[in-house]
Order: sequence, then C-alpha cells, then structure tokens
Amino acid sequence: MTDGSLDGLFDGFTERDWRSDASGTVRFAMIGLGWWTKEMAMPAVTDSELCETTVVVSSSKERATDLADTHATVEHGLTYDEFHDGVASEAYDAVYIATPNALHLQYAETAAALDKAILCEKPMEATVERAEDLVTVCEDVTLMVAYRMHTEPAVRRARDLVNSGFVGDVVGVHGAMTQRLLDMFDDPNHWRLDPDLAGYGASVMDLGIYPLNTTRFVLDADPVSVSARMDSTHDAFADVPDERASFRLDFDDGVTAVCTASQNAAQSSHLRITGTEGELELDPVFFPDEPRRLRIRRGDLDATLDFDQRDQMTEEFTYFADRVLADEDPLPDGEHGLADMKILRAIYEAGETGAVVGVADEL
Amino acid sequence: MTDGSLDGLFDGFTERDWRSDASGTVRFAMIGLGWWTKEMAMPAVTDSELCETTVVVSSSKERATDLADTHATVEHGLTYDEFHDGVASEAYDAVYIATPNALHLQYAETAAALDKAILCEKPMEATVERAEDLVTVCEDVTLMVAYRMHTEPAVRRARDLVNSGFVGDVVGVHGAMTQRLLDMFDDPNHWRLDPDLAGYGASVMDLGIYPLNTTRFVLDADPVSVSARMDSTHDAFADVPDERASFRLDFDDGVTAVCTASQNAAQSSHLRITGTEGELELDPVFFPDEPRRLRIRRGDLDATLDFDQRDQMTEEFTYFADRVLADEDPLPDGEHGLADMKILRAIYEAGETGAVVGVADEL
Repeated sequence: MTDGSLDGLFDGFTERDWRSDASGTVRFAMIGLGWWTKEMAMPAVTDSELCETTVVVSSSKERATDLADTHATVEHGLTYDEFHDGVASEAYDAVYIATPNALHLQYAETAAALDKAILCEKPMEATVERAEDLVTVCEDVTLMVAYRMHTEPAVRRARDLVNSGFVGDVVGVHGAMTQRLLDMFDDPNHWRLDPDLAGYGASVMDLGIYPLNTTRFVLDADPVSVSARMDSTHDAFADVPDERASFRLDFDDGVTAVCTASQNAAQSSHLRITGTEGELELDPVFFPDEPRRLRIRRGDLDATLDFDQRDQMTEEFTYFADRVLADEDPLPDGEHGLADMKILRAIYEAGETGAVVGVADEL
Repeated sequence: MTDGSLDGLFDGFTERDWRSDASGTVRFAMIGLGWWTKEMAMPAVTDSELCETTVVVSSSKERATDLADTHATVEHGLTYDEFHDGVASEAYDAVYIATPNALHLQYAETAAALDKAILCEKPMEATVERAEDLVTVCEDVTLMVAYRMHTEPAVRRARDLVNSGFVGDVVGVHGAMTQRLLDMFDDPNHWRLDPDLAGYGASVMDLGIYPLNTTRFVLDADPVSVSARMDSTHDAFADVPDERASFRLDFDDGVTAVCTASQNAAQSSHLRITGTEGELELDPVFFPDEPRRLRIRRGDLDATLDFDQRDQMTEEFTYFADRVLADEDPLPDGEHGLADMKILRAIYEAGETGAVVGVADEL
C-alpha cells in the first residue's frame, strides 16, 4: 500500500469479511417497542439469515400482544414484568435492548440471569457507574454494544485503508452528527432530553458517540484527553447542557479528532480522516436511511467509491448472531462500550468546566 | 429566503458585486520576489484591468533588475535599501508586501511615509505588537490585508446564503487547511518554520488563518474565546509548536468553529457551515490552484454548484485597485487583520496552556 496502489482493496467492498461459517438461527426478544425497534431493528432481523424475532417486550401488554398477533415470527408479547419473571424465556436466545439509556441495566441484568446473549444499544447506559454494573452483570454471557458502524462496509474499508497506510500517518479527524430531534418526535418531553433517562446529555450521548466511537474504531486507538464546549438555549433543551456541542478527542502524537453534534440542527453526518499522504471522507455516514459515500484522495487520485448499500441494522444483527453461533466474542463488547461511557463523561465534564480532561488513566 | 427558494441567488455567481465604476490603473511595487510573488501575484496583476507592476524590490539587485529587464511593464528593479530611500517612488502608486511576516512592518512604514497604498500579505505581521505598529504607521494611507477569500465568488455566495438565512441559524462550522510544506520548498530552514520570521508558529499562522478568517467573514462575527491543541515531532518543526494543530473558535450562542491545520499533511482544504435548516460545504476552497466547489443542502435539496472559476489573486488585486481608485476603504483593513493577529496569539496561548483563552475584550 505504501505505493498508493489500491489493487484488490475494493474487490470485496461489501463482503462480510467478519462472517464465520457458523449457521443456525438466533431467536431474539426485542426489549422496548419504540419506532427504532419496530421500523429499523425488526425488519433488519427479518432480513438477516441468522436471526428471528420471537418475543417482544413492552410496557403495554396490548402493544406487545398486538405485535405478536400480526408479526409472522413473534410468538410472545410480554410486559416488562413478565420478562423479568422469565416468562417464555425458552422462546428466545438473545435480547436486543433498545429502551432509554437508563433502563438498559435492569434488562441486561435479567437477560444475563436467564443466560441470554445481549445486544445492547449505545450509549451503554446513562452513567459510567451503571455501565460498569452492566458489564459486571454480563460477565458470563455474550454482550455486544450496538455500534452499527463496526459492520458498515464503507467504514470498514476506510479502516482498512487507514490500517494499510493509504493516508500515511493520520494527522487529524473531523466528525459530525446532527439532526432535528424535535421534528422527529414532536415531543418536548422526549426521553433523550431527560437526563434521568438519557444520562449526561442529549447530543453528545446520542449523536456525538458516532464520530467518537467510529474514530476509535477506524484509528484503532483511544483518546488520552478531551475538551468540549456546549450550549443549550431552546426551551426543550433546558435540562441538558448540549443542544449544541463540539468536542475534541486528543490521541497520541498530536492527532486530534474535532467533532460537532447537535439534536437541533439540519441532518448531517460525516467523518474525514486526513493523513500525511492522503485523505478519506465518509459523507453521509452515520444515518441508516442515507446512502453511505466514501471519498478517497491521495496525490492525483480523487475518487468517490460506488458500492452496494448494505442495511446497517441487518449487518449489525447478522454480525451479532454470527458471533453467538460461532461462540466468539463480538468486537464492540462491554469494555469497548464502557470506554465510550468514560470518554463521554469526560466530554461532559470538559464542557462544564472548560478544562482539558484526561481519560488515559481510565481506559 | 426563509422558504428555501434559491431564485436569483446564483444568477451573478461570479459577478464582482463589489466593483465600483472606478477606472484607471494602480501601479504596483512588488516587495519580496519569492515564488508566490512571481508565479501567483505578478501574473494576477497582469490579468487585472486595474493593475500593473512597474517596480520590483528584492534583496538582490541582480534578481530585481533581471526581472525588470524581462517583464513587459516593470520599469525598475530595486534593492530593499533603494526602496527605503524612496528610489523611483514616482513610478508606483501602491505596494504589495509578500515578504516573511516579520518584515512586513518595515516595508509598510516606508510605503506609508511615501504615501503609497498598501496591500499586505496575511498574517499581517509576526506578533500582535508589530501588527499594531503596522496599523499605526498606515493610519493615513489605504491598507488592505490580503485575504483573497473575501473576493472568492464561492465564498461570497456562501456568505450571501448564510446572511439570507438559507441554513437557518448557524450551529457549527468545520474548517481545515493542510499542505506538505517540506515538499513545496525542500528547505528545512524555510522562513515559515522560523519563529523570528513567521511569528507564533507555522501551521496556524500560515494555514489556520484561512478557516479562521473565512469563518469570521462568512458568519460576520468574531469569536469570544478559543482553545487549541498543538504538537510538533518532525525535526523541521523543532522551533515551532504546531506541525499539527487543531483549534476551536467560540462564537456567541454556542456556535463553534472547529478547525485543523498542518504544514505536514496531505493538501486539503474545506469549510462546512451547518445550520438549523441546512448546510453549506466549500471543498476545496483555500488553495488557489484547485477548483472551488460549493455544495448546498437543505431539506431534499442537495446540489453542488458549477461556476466559472475565478483566479483568486486577480480578484484580490482588482478589488484592492478598485478601492484605491474609488477612494473607498477596503473591507479586510488593518483593524480586521489585527483582530486575526489577536485571535492567533490567543490560539497559540491556548495551545501552550490547554486553557480556554478569551479574546472578546481585545477585539
């Protein structure tokens, strides 16, 4: 790669380079029946050759049983209490936890006690302490945190390019994720705006975690310190510090990632990695409903790669199921997600104090 | 514009909306005969209908007279001493100062004493104190700092779009400028790497000033505080803190601009402005030898505008000459350039201390 050749690198652009020869079906209990679960996760499970939804769990018995009645593979519609009581636990092998952040721990705890594999949405929990408890209770079961960028083909190829030296030494990263949350939910009491449910804040916890985690993944490195600036003006953001946020991740050798995130801005997402020899840009990248695009530049080469778009959620569920069936540990495991939680806490502390906050000792 | 309509906005995309009806010719003395002056500035002057180079000034009498002998319009080739002595001062109306930063003041002082208009390269000088002196000595003459982005059509249209509300309220900005200085000059003793000549550093002073100043221009706002991280590892950067740099500009209302700059990274430049309603991206933007590109996004609209590329240096010189001939003040004047110097000093202080450094009181 040091000669800048791309020979062979893109032959298997969307190939599942992580796929083992395991086969079978992982049966899921879906915990939390919000729009994300119903419109994004469950269709992805249906599309995955290794997954099936057999149980749904909701605060409303009616919503759960209605869904069970109308969905081809769902056998049981449970309340949260029934889930905690172990009802129909023989009907599923794994759980997908897509509740508000601060509720992840309790469902993970029950799932682990029932010896189920766990795919838990990110951020892992509302606070570092609760995330640590989550890792502890899941010690004896498979735990994956749902970072769908880890199996996004464009992100994986960007990572391959960085690892192979295509951009030379990485010098700096720009990343952003913004969306108009209030248009999406039309609910000023949405849980992402409630610190009791969301945790440290609204924009960095929910969106900033994408450039944060994807930078860690693509660079295969963790930051040593962070700084941040945050501001909330809109009434709906009165309880969280970060209607608008920017944060910097400091890696070794003077490499920085500068990131922005806002739940109250036009939808946009990108990740740009600049090196001594070239540059990669993913734009858009983080939203599942937009086609991903990878631009690569080096010397006279400036190409935007065209490739089959993969459904990010199908890839994620299939990867998780493959790991479970192959009895292998998933890469974005509990420790990996816990590191993000510690970095997120540091970012919010930096946003509050203005200081550079070290994280190297904690990771 | 609040309806997202673009009607009429791009009819005069490359039109010189700043052009007065002044006519005539401004005759220039070119001070400093480096590659930038010879290959970028002098051809631009030749192409401008309002400019002419009549005098060149160099440390070498031979280089100056050789150029005078071979160039169609140059009448006099002077040494710096001759320039200071006022030799041939009747042969030019204005000077273009393109020497190392720390030498700007002395030539500006002589030019002002000779009552010449002054186009001074950016950054204005090596330090805030010297820049203040430069403003003082130029009090009675026209002084423009050479920010060619102010007359770049793509940047001006981006500014128009922001002013007209196309992106809604600006939420955040990403900007970067990087290049491989050592490949360009093959000289580890290049003046940009020497703090005595360059000032506070190498990358933010020379490159970071582009996203810094262009953000100020497009947003029509000044930052209230800054933070930064810098690192130098390569031997050639031993005397400057910022082989790699990232800095954040904090504007009112939680608006931030996150920027990166490096003299030792692949050539790249961009400016991205994200608002509550839409987004603009200029990429590439800051290098005169690359075609500028403006992407605009809002709702379902996602367009990359095609337009006649203008030579940035020709536009800059023509604007300056137009101001001189019309007896009007140029926009990027001494005070505007001095504000950048104060912000640059604050960025370097922030890079050294890690602290957030306020600049609001100084601007």
